Amino acid sequence: MTTATELLSIPAEVQDLLFREARTANTFTEEPVSEEQLRAIYDLVKWGPTSMNQQPLRVVLVRSEEARQRLLPHLMEGNRAKTERAPLTALLAADTEFHERLPEVFPHNPGAKNLFADNEEFRHTNAKLNASLQVAYFIIGVRAAGLAAGPMTGFDGAGIAEEFFPGGAHHPLVAINIGKPGENAWFGRLPRLSYEDVVTTV
Amino acid sequence: MTTATELLSIPAEVQDLLFREARTANTFTEEPVSEEQLRAIYDLVKWGPTSMNQQPLRVVLVRSEEARQRLLPHLMEGNRAKTERAPLTALLAADTEFHERLPEVFPHNPGAKNLFADNEEFRHTNAKLNASLQVAYFIIGVRAAGLAAGPMTGFDGAGIAEEFFPGGAHHPLVAINIGKPGENAWFGRLPRLSYEDVVTTV
Repeated sequence: MTTATELLSIPAEVQDLLFREARTANTFTEEPVSEEQLRAIYDLVKWGPTSMNQQPLRVVLVRSEEARQRLLPHLMEGNRAKTERAPLTALLAADTEFHERLPEVFPHNPGAKNLFADNEEFRHTNAKLNASLQVAYFIIGVRAAGLAAGPMTGFDGAGIAEEFFPGGAHHPLVAINIGKPGENAWFGRLPRLSYEDVVTTV
Repeated sequence: MTTATELLSIPAEVQDLLFREARTANTFTEEPVSEEQLRAIYDLVKWGPTSMNQQPLRVVLVRSEEARQRLLPHLMEGNRAKTERAPLTALLAADTEFHERLPEVFPHNPGAKNLFADNEEFRHTNAKLNASLQVAYFIIGVRAAGLAAGPMTGFDGAGIAEEFFPGGAHHPLVAINIGKPGENAWFGRLPRLSYEDVVTTV
């Protein structure tokens, strides 16, 4: 019998590392996360696809103690203690002015920028969708680096935008604590919807 | 010297399969994509994290010729020919009524459902963000199965919702052609923004 694991083209231990055994970590060891590791993660996940190569994701790495203290009040209370103790927290946001870079990153279509310039709603929808795809690629990249990710959406987005993304063009989506998992790093595994719940064939 | 590839915990050939060499395919061979493969992909990527385990992604697999003909008019013209010839097209949508399942998938917090029940805007924002994360996990899963994905956002979402997601509670996000890459399956690689363009440290 072919098992599901064997139907995939990546080794079972990689399936485990990226998905099956990977867990949202709530505690971390004190081992630091280096800039070199972050560069390796970005240099992998930057290749993930976005509509018209928009790449609207922008990241602020909260590394200094001073910046961490500025971040904490904007998090929901349940997210503060774990973030205070994480070696590194990444704030991931959608750049709603991503179209300014389209002439460089989508050079064969010089009209691409104008498609978005005059349509703010379309631009914001595209920025959020595609930056969200990039958030997921980033989470997979953190795991591919042998690190645990602790993604959070419980925060005051407007407050984080004002504090860490000055200029008004960024929409914070997810904050991610990053490090090696500490003691009792996660809760019990929560149930997943079945294939039948989610997928319909027509 | 440690190269970026060596800083990661997954083999270089898996890095290539999932990100570096993976490309958005525009042509496919006639080799079919089996339901067994789709189940293997879903059973891997269902473990990807979402806020409060929301899992708002819903998928319609367009497999029959009849359904394919119903889909084509809703795609932007540039996406029609390649979709007509793809072995399988998956329509990925956010279920804005995802909160109905929270008592099952987030059982330790019985109040979770009510958090969303009375706040439509909050519910829609959560559905779109988290289903978008799941779209990206799904793309990675297709690649992990040794298949090529051809994600598209150029379509009439309202038309696809009406045709394939009856009931009014679904918001189509991305359509993905799936199969083995055919001849001249992709364009030249488009440039990516640099680490310095995207990441700031504070």
